[in-house]
Amino acid sequence: MKAWLSKLCYDLTTDPSSPVELADFELSHALPDFSCKTEVIPSMGESYRIRRIHDCEYVICGGTSGILYGAYALIRLSLSGAQIPEDLSSSPRYPLRMINCWDNADGSVERGYSGRSLFFDGDSLCYDPFRMRELGRLLASVGLNTLCINNVNVHYPAQLLLEDFLPQAAALAGIFRPFGIRLMFSVDFSQPMRHGISTADPLDPSVRSWWKETAARIYKSIPDLAGFLVKADSEGRPGPFTYGRNHADGANMLAEAVRPYGGTVVWRCFVYNCRQDWRDTKTDRPMAAWEHYSCLDGQFADNVILQIKHGPFDFQVREPLSPLLLGLKKTNMAMELQLAQEYTGHQIDIYTMIPMWRELFDELPADSITSVAAVSNLGRDDNYTGHPLAAVNLYSFGLLAWDPCIDAEAAVSEWVRLTYSFSPADTRTLTAILLSSRRIYEKYTAPLGIGWMVNPHEHYGPNPSGYEYDSWGTYHKANRDAVGIDRTASGTGYLLQYPESIQKKYADPETCPDLYLLFYHRLPYTFIMKDGRTLIQRIYDDHFEGYDETISMSETLRSLPFPSPDREVILSRMDRQLYNAKEWCDIINTFFFRLSGIPDGHGRTIYD
Amino acid sequence: MKAWLSKLCYDLTTDPSSPVELADFELSHALPDFSCKTEVIPSMGESYRIRRIHDCEYVICGGTSGILYGAYALIRLSLSGAQIPEDLSSSPRYPLRMINCWDNADGSVERGYSGRSLFFDGDSLCYDPFRMRELGRLLASVGLNTLCINNVNVHYPAQLLLEDFLPQAAALAGIFRPFGIRLMFSVDFSQPMRHGISTADPLDPSVRSWWKETAARIYKSIPDLAGFLVKADSEGRPGPFTYGRNHADGANMLAEAVRPYGGTVVWRCFVYNCRQDWRDTKTDRPMAAWEHYSCLDGQFADNVILQIKHGPFDFQVREPLSPLLLGLKKTNMAMELQLAQEYTGHQIDIYTMIPMWRELFDELPADSITSVAAVSNLGRDDNYTGHPLAAVNLYSFGLLAWDPCIDAEAAVSEWVRLTYSFSPADTRTLTAILLSSRRIYEKYTAPLGIGWMVNPHEHYGPNPSGYEYDSWGTYHKANRDAVGIDRTASGTGYLLQYPESIQKKYADPETCPDLYLLFYHRLPYTFIMKDGRTLIQRIYDDHFEGYDETISMSETLRSLPFPSPDREVILSRMDRQLYNAKEWCDIINTFFFRLSGIPDGHGRTIYD
Repeated sequence: MKAWLSKLCYDLTTDPSSPVELADFELSHALPDFSCKTEVIPSMGESYRIRRIHDCEYVICGGTSGILYGAYALIRLSLSGAQIPEDLSSSPRYPLRMINCWDNADGSVERGYSGRSLFFDGDSLCYDPFRMRELGRLLASVGLNTLCINNVNVHYPAQLLLEDFLPQAAALAGIFRPFGIRLMFSVDFSQPMRHGISTADPLDPSVRSWWKETAARIYKSIPDLAGFLVKADSEGRPGPFTYGRNHADGANMLAEAVRPYGGTVVWRCFVYNCRQDWRDTKTDRPMAAWEHYSCLDGQFADNVILQIKHGPFDFQVREPLSPLLLGLKKTNMAMELQLAQEYTGHQIDIYTMIPMWRELFDELPADSITSVAAVSNLGRDDNYTGHPLAAVNLYSFGLLAWDPCIDAEAAVSEWVRLTYSFSPADTRTLTAILLSSRRIYEKYTAPLGIGWMVNPHEHYGPNPSGYEYDSWGTYHKANRDAVGIDRTASGTGYLLQYPESIQKKYADPETCPDLYLLFYHRLPYTFIMKDGRTLIQRIYDDHFEGYDETISMSETLRSLPFPSPDREVILSRMDRQLYNAKEWCDIINTFFFRLSGIPDGHGRTIYD
Repeated sequence: MKAWLSKLCYDLTTDPSSPVELADFELSHALPDFSCKTEVIPSMGESYRIRRIHDCEYVICGGTSGILYGAYALIRLSLSGAQIPEDLSSSPRYPLRMINCWDNADGSVERGYSGRSLFFDGDSLCYDPFRMRELGRLLASVGLNTLCINNVNVHYPAQLLLEDFLPQAAALAGIFRPFGIRLMFSVDFSQPMRHGISTADPLDPSVRSWWKETAARIYKSIPDLAGFLVKADSEGRPGPFTYGRNHADGANMLAEAVRPYGGTVVWRCFVYNCRQDWRDTKTDRPMAAWEHYSCLDGQFADNVILQIKHGPFDFQVREPLSPLLLGLKKTNMAMELQLAQEYTGHQIDIYTMIPMWRELFDELPADSITSVAAVSNLGRDDNYTGHPLAAVNLYSFGLLAWDPCIDAEAAVSEWVRLTYSFSPADTRTLTAILLSSRRIYEKYTAPLGIGWMVNPHEHYGPNPSGYEYDSWGTYHKANRDAVGIDRTASGTGYLLQYPESIQKKYADPETCPDLYLLFYHRLPYTFIMKDGRTLIQRIYDDHFEGYDETISMSETLRSLPFPSPDREVILSRMDRQLYNAKEWCDIINTFFFRLSGIPDGHGRTIYD
């Protein structure tokens, strides 16, 4: 068993028959000195209560999956050396806690940095049952309950999940069922057209019938399928726009098809013009989701969830919360996070996400959303996440999806204690490294919320103007005097999509939080920041600091007693991160120095 | 039959047995009203003499291939409507007139824009004999006599040309033999290591024996093989440097192996550091070839030819003549040109090369070189060159390789008259378009000799900083004040690699020809050009003019009566060129405007 479950040093060699049986098995093996009773109370569902009866004697009650989550909670507490409360009750905050795999039928993984797909190969559904059980445990042990196994970009033959692959998919669903995990499929909105129907128009009766019949057939095989995930009218995917329909028409049509079976339609809101002319300064890509969806608030069926990326762009190191997450009032919403380090270091650079997530959830009113989803960072690598330390992101995502108020340091420290048998000092050291890693990465990459200064397509390594004349709507328009896009009322007006309190917080560059400054404002290099530094000096300082801190991180990391093979993987990737951080630091500084002509105030080397 | 030979409207349905038989066949079919006698004078070799005896009655004498070239010359003159002299003698200036195909064994063509390989597919040698005969005719009709069929980057299994593929290669050589064309193979310097030898050290006796035995075996199959073409120690290719040997050691070892059979080793001089740190301002890539080879002058065997790219970089739109071509005195040299439009429009944009070649040959003393080579622009497309008008480059290259003093307008006009049955006015119009096309392309792309502002890897479309922080040694270092690299004595010293007369011509930015200004000098945007314009205004003017001239070219082209399918292909590619020219114009102008802050003096739109 891998990653944080390395302390569960026994295998699940056969499929458990139910969550309760699995809970009993795990408890007896993981905590042999404990005596644990389980008591099913169906009305408790996914919730659990753990009570201590005597020393090392516990009763866990809950619904069937609640008992499993309780068992894992007890195991996590105990194996991580935490104090176990006398009486602990817990319920998940969100009913759907989802992992979205971007796995293609050919076995490749879009934005995958952990090897090939765990589910597909050679254009077929193809998995190792042993690894599926390990995966079930990885997810269930942190409370995740929904797994979409195929890419939202449904490349042929992934459509066959609803057709020829269905029997195997049903078997896979069976493997995950005792872990409390339900499968979900990404579907191709135009799939009826593979079956002799001349349209995919969501209001066309033959299309509606086809989806209803298809849902009936699928749910006969997989009665507890969580539902469908849809990327429509986005980056070349088919969708309702082709037929002059809106996204409520599209989503509701699918929702009607899965409703009889308790299914949900998760409809992604990643819709924008990816063919923008770089000369067009009227269009501002972050405004797109709001423009498409705010007018549809209240029009979606109650088994539709709009899945909204956490920021208005696309998983940059720093983005404000999507205005759509704050603006929809009569629509079910899921926040979409990304564990795969697409723009955040490709699981080469260390990048622990929970500090970023905490900032997002601290801005989000308690009941705005009903679900959370995260793009998977999993693959067929032995350690599942490519970089051993990237596992902390899956782990802490699970805790966060269960309880969005979770403390970042507590979550990371718990993962460290479960994963490595370190001294308390080393545990604190590694926890500190992980918690600081996002800010360090942020410092040496694009400055102050500007994003996108990355190599196009690949999304690793610096390229300050890589997207500047491209069609993706991601521009910084740096010139000799200034940098950034004015997104306030005097600029594109993006900020007006927010509630007034947020508008106030960001509208004035004098008071706007520094780290969002260039997201919202176009500013001269000589702009004086709140701490008295000029903008350009702040850019230089952050970059030099980011690189220096990477060097320190590397030295500290080398001092920690990682076991093999983690040690070798971690240290070799750290070398690559050092190279990357140096390139970023020097290239970004040179880029701005060539533009501004302003030297570093501390005389450090900026190459000309 | 395609391209300019469209007027040879009869097929070669069987293999001719000899050049003389082929000459008789072509004359009798192409010029049925003529009576032509051929008379072999072996000592004349490739030379020919054509004498008119009576009206439409000619005698062609020459060596066997000379007669063939004479026949094609007479056919070209007659079918193009030129006046045929009473007595015409001609000899080729260079004995080796080579086409280098960059075709891979898998059927792909490196930098190929005309479809897949004519020679390879599915990791085997695999060709259509009919197309081979057409190709033989295309090449022989303009006097080309050497064809290297595989990529200088010898990717496995192209090594099998010396092994399993040899019988088929011998058959292919047989097809080309009556056309006076000899095959050449690109070889992998490390090939002995495929055969149990632990080294490829050129001074190792077992390596030398292996090559000798291999040459003996190959020449038994193909007695007239022209020889080997070698890319060594370049962009990851193996070579003598691995063993602490120099390139004379490497080339001479191979030369010794092919010498008994009259073979030649063509050794490419494209050696530079492709892992340069962009921060390193001491290394100047254009200096590399001179640094590697000038010290070896006189050390190469007499059956070695150093093949030197025409410019010191890599086939940019404008480069000065390579200093190596002017500097080696005791070494056989070939000038390498590139018909494939790698950096010059991918056979989408119209780009006729002979005006550029004329400039090069006008700078090159008469007997500096002994051979010419050109990277092929041929592929499996029906028209062989992707863009029908790109055929003019192969055609005029043939004429130039025969007679480097050829007039550019005469060559292009001849091609037009042979290819299209246009009125004299339309012929003049198309000739003028073709002759102007390189300067137009130059205007809308990177300014004044700077090069490289192109999308990396792909090499089509603008990307002003695409290579700026990369490892390829191709930097412009534009900042808010100035652009370019100082390559004079006060800068990298590149200019010192030239004879004094050339140093004088380019050393002073006040007198340096405008079009080379930013190749040699780093200059402020406010630099005053000879015509009184500032440098930045000249950049803007060229770009606006280049785009405007592309629009005019497009309109004129549309008025010409091209036959199908050429018309459709030409016009659809013209639309793509228009888009490309607009992107280049606006992006380059915006790039420099953002840096300089200086507006266009004529108030035209530059996007900010």
